[in-house]
Amino acid sequence: MGDAEHVRQVARGAREAAAALAPLSRAAKDAALRAMADALVDRSAEIIAANGRDIEHARSSGEAAAMIDRLGLNEARVRGIADAVREIAELPDPVGEVVRGYTLPNGLELRQVRVPLGVVGIIYEGRPNVTADAASLTLKSGNAVLLRGSSSAYHSNSAIVAVLRDALAGTEVPPDAVQMVPGAGRDSVKHLMRARGLVDVLIPRGGASLIQTVVEESTVPVIETGVGNCHVYVDSDADLDVAERILINAKVQRPSVCNAAETLLVHAAVADAFLPRALATLRAAGVTVHGDERVCSYADSPSDADGVVPAVEEDWTTEYLSLDIAAAVVPSLDAAIEHIRRYGSAHTEAIVTRSQAAARRFVANVDSAGVMVNASTRFTDGGEFGFGAEIGISTQKLHARGPMGLPELTSTKYVVTGDGHIRT
Amino acid sequence: MGDAEHVRQVARGAREAAAALAPLSRAAKDAALRAMADALVDRSAEIIAANGRDIEHARSSGEAAAMIDRLGLNEARVRGIADAVREIAELPDPVGEVVRGYTLPNGLELRQVRVPLGVVGIIYEGRPNVTADAASLTLKSGNAVLLRGSSSAYHSNSAIVAVLRDALAGTEVPPDAVQMVPGAGRDSVKHLMRARGLVDVLIPRGGASLIQTVVEESTVPVIETGVGNCHVYVDSDADLDVAERILINAKVQRPSVCNAAETLLVHAAVADAFLPRALATLRAAGVTVHGDERVCSYADSPSDADGVVPAVEEDWTTEYLSLDIAAAVVPSLDAAIEHIRRYGSAHTEAIVTRSQAAARRFVANVDSAGVMVNASTRFTDGGEFGFGAEIGISTQKLHARGPMGLPELTSTKYVVTGDGHIRT
Repeated sequence: MGDAEHVRQVARGAREAAAALAPLSRAAKDAALRAMADALVDRSAEIIAANGRDIEHARSSGEAAAMIDRLGLNEARVRGIADAVREIAELPDPVGEVVRGYTLPNGLELRQVRVPLGVVGIIYEGRPNVTADAASLTLKSGNAVLLRGSSSAYHSNSAIVAVLRDALAGTEVPPDAVQMVPGAGRDSVKHLMRARGLVDVLIPRGGASLIQTVVEESTVPVIETGVGNCHVYVDSDADLDVAERILINAKVQRPSVCNAAETLLVHAAVADAFLPRALATLRAAGVTVHGDERVCSYADSPSDADGVVPAVEEDWTTEYLSLDIAAAVVPSLDAAIEHIRRYGSAHTEAIVTRSQAAARRFVANVDSAGVMVNASTRFTDGGEFGFGAEIGISTQKLHARGPMGLPELTSTKYVVTGDGHIRT
Repeated sequence: MGDAEHVRQVARGAREAAAALAPLSRAAKDAALRAMADALVDRSAEIIAANGRDIEHARSSGEAAAMIDRLGLNEARVRGIADAVREIAELPDPVGEVVRGYTLPNGLELRQVRVPLGVVGIIYEGRPNVTADAASLTLKSGNAVLLRGSSSAYHSNSAIVAVLRDALAGTEVPPDAVQMVPGAGRDSVKHLMRARGLVDVLIPRGGASLIQTVVEESTVPVIETGVGNCHVYVDSDADLDVAERILINAKVQRPSVCNAAETLLVHAAVADAFLPRALATLRAAGVTVHGDERVCSYADSPSDADGVVPAVEEDWTTEYLSLDIAAAVVPSLDAAIEHIRRYGSAHTEAIVTRSQAAARRFVANVDSAGVMVNASTRFTDGGEFGFGAEIGISTQKLHARGPMGLPELTSTKYVVTGDGHIRT
């Protein structure tokens, strides 16, 4: 059997499992999730041993210590993974929710009801905890999952999936609801992307190049996630203390994530008052500012040592994911909106202002998944939004936009009940 | 300028127009729609003259009379098109609707608000009224539209679009919110399908092969519409009078549309009681039944003259769109569900039963956009569902499923308001 056929066979198994899983009660799904959590704890030694092989491989490949630390599992981390599974069991079941319902003039009763998407493929990089997390979120929302993790975590992911499947064998959920995509390398991703009709949606989570490849080549519908060139705009009416606090938080609190700020825009009217103090605080926090001419004019002598360097065109579109930020002075609110439209990635933008009119105009004209008024860009997050969990942050406009919780892993169907109604 | 670049240029114009259109008030959009309707009536002579060229071309190409009739426009039909535009102006504006909203524990106020998708591409076959209809629905939902109609209606569509754009010139809506895709033939569709980043979604409306091509080749996200292999299942507990009425309505009332029934499934326990009368009624209505062995056993001698012919495997997946229906006897409700899962297109399926348990089981296990209990499959329709209008019927699970009204032409964004909130 070729690799492509092997992937399709696994996807067909997922499809069968999805059909059995879709009508299960919340109680049955929660019992399966708790069995999964118990099994992770019971068999943590096995998972940690498999993880040791990945760690060994990473060490011998000369991976950075930080990467090896992120990859590593121990008793406490496995317990953390199991706890996250239990938390997902506590969340409300999105399936069966009546989204709208009314009686039509002819007496037909119409209900639009949430149903699972079916088979969800998740392609991810990063830590092995994503494996259990993604499997739990898809299971809770009634979907079968096909997992394609990073090769650097292959042994860890395989061990986790084996434990989860064994746990499901004792429950009403078919083990094939949780499967790894067989095969290694880019080819298995390619076969997954061509499995239209068997896979209902693909969610790539990871770097921009992975996401770009999936978006370009997949015939299976894709939900794009994660690239964020987020802006903080300091309006002419801003409270500058608030502006500084939000800017520093948005840039510095966790620079490696997609909702961190990557560009600062400052209204010309407050540039003199704001930029000197903002640049000093950014420098103290270790941030390098890639400034336009006006921003650079507030530095003693623009240089790395000074924490301010001249921006080039490319800086306006860059997602640094590091202690760097692009910065420009804009002549007006509309110029800020135009800059964001031209260079932004429509993830999250924040305005800092005391003006109701400015906030209203910014909110109306900035078309991003998250629009923050006097709040840090870092709040665009499923946990912060109160969703209880998140499978990713969609940066596309179709199906789901922004943080995706359990309802975003569902579709709907219309159930229409009559007593012999025909159309005339 | 090459064709591809020409399409991209038009799409960039649409993008600009979409940004201007998105924040407009309902009043501004409705005024534009009424101006469009007035202009269609005022300039009907021009539209009818252009239509004459399409009719002439269709005649000289030897098109069927029925096709020519569908293509033809006269004063009354143009007035009908204008009235439909006015009706869309009367519908509520989906943009700005707060889908969910609450205050987070930290005091942040979160609102998920409907926003336009942006630029919508519509590829369609069929009658020129679709041109004005699609332009109105997209405009009302705040989107710019790129229209790619059938070449058989090229002159009619061009005239209608010219009239609509002229009308917009006197309103707050930029004329580039309504544009035709330049170029002819399959190539211009191809360029449209590759305009990812400029076009937010493509909605192909038409035959299965058009839709298949778009789905396979587009890098722009697609909403699949329209293919319907709809089933009517007559349960062991069915009221046979109701079953016959629904079957005939679903098959005969308008056989050429996607929500017409294409397969009849009958529970074995009522086959003797139901099939003889059903076959007689279907024959009287001019329907040819493609029956399995058991169904054929109720015919005197299976033949075209008898209205019953033996089914082949392919019949179970065929969308006839004609006075034909596939028919099989199934041993159980579960066998009917399994048949639908295997052969269906997940558009609409109906169960006829007096049993609450059977209805519940069918609804839970049949995963189609529309699931009808004791009602005709023909009800899956935006108008019948009370949406006021419909851009198509989605048969995919992502973003929209079933009849698509105005809300389905929108996305959402999260607006989060604080007073200097930062993440800790």
